[in-house]
Amino acid sequence: MKLILAVVEDKDSNRLTDALGEKDFKTTKLSTTGGFLKEGNTTLMVGCNDDAVDDALEIIKKNSSQREQMVAPISPMGGNADSYIPRPINVEVGGATVFVLPIDAFYQF
Amino acid sequence: MKLILAVVEDKDSNRLTDALGEKDFKTTKLSTTGGFLKEGNTTLMVGCNDDAVDDALEIIKKNSSQREQMVAPISPMGGNADSYIPRPINVEVGGATVFVLPIDAFYQF
Amino acid sequence: MKLILAVVEDKDSNRLTDALGEKDFKTTKLSTTGGFLKEGNTTLMVGCNDDAVDDALEIIKKNSSQREQMVAPISPMGGNADSYIPRPINVEVGGATVFVLPIDAFYQF
Ligand code: NI
Ligand code: NI
Ligand code: NI
Repeated sequence: MKLILAVVEDKDSNRLTDALGEKDFKTTKLSTTGGFLKEGNTTLMVGCNDDAVDDALEIIKKNSSQREQMVAPISPMGGNADSYIPRPINVEVGGATVFVLPIDAFYQF
Repeated sequence: MKLILAVVEDKDSNRLTDALGEKDFKTTKLSTTGGFLKEGNTTLMVGCNDDAVDDALEIIKKNSSQREQMVAPISPMGGNADSYIPRPINVEVGGATVFVLPIDAFYQF
Repeated sequence: MKLILAVVEDKDSNRLTDALGEKDFKTTKLSTTGGFLKEGNTTLMVGCNDDAVDDALEIIKKNSSQREQMVAPISPMGGNADSYIPRPINVEVGGATVFVLPIDAFYQF
């Protein structure tokens, strides 16, 4: 058994949890902030058999990899709204930092 | 030393933390959601000596195992309150998913 | 690679995260409560190379060790305010509980 800890962006976490669930991986979400990724992020804990680690990693990669996305920037608070023209910008979103931890034992009570 | 990660239901976490504390196990709570258990849940981190792992597991099992419980269902929001008769139902509550992780080193500063 | 889990007091977590960041350690914060430390606390996850563990531990020790501090006690709610003289008291603050975990694999997607 392994414990996979995946730190992903909030916006990717539901999609990723769903995708993992479809393949019978059970996940627990920990709310996390900052550091590995710039925005609000979530740490998913996934317990799985050794021979399922590659499948889990593939799903994590597919659903939370870093990619570029056009986004509408948020209007600055208290700025001069008249002169402010929001213009979509290309930003990096997503990205996953993943640790695979050995475990000595696993129980369900 | 081992690190025990126990994912338990919110409603069991205080009782479990107390029970662990009475036996001098120190716990840290992480707020978690979904996945391993259907309701709001909590992950407890418990650091302990190798020869205390079984005792900790016994306490976790005793205080958070899955069991049946009669509960009054919550009235549906915006439903027809007149026709709604809340009737206790028998549900599965509790349950713990537990990982025992090896640790290389432990420090207290 | 190792995964360092450091449970520190909330008040120390920003300073510690900054100090770790200055040395290129990337951290993820998990909100945690109770147990290892009496007040609100935070668990930091820090992934690092084996030969950087000692440096990380040194930074954690330096920025979150337990120490004494004079604090103004909070006025008791609903107490007799006239007779209450808040008087600084010497309390233990800070403190870190640190686990160094082996990891099988580390990925960034
Ligand atoms: Ni980002
Ligand atoms: Ni449940
Ligand atoms: Ni304290």
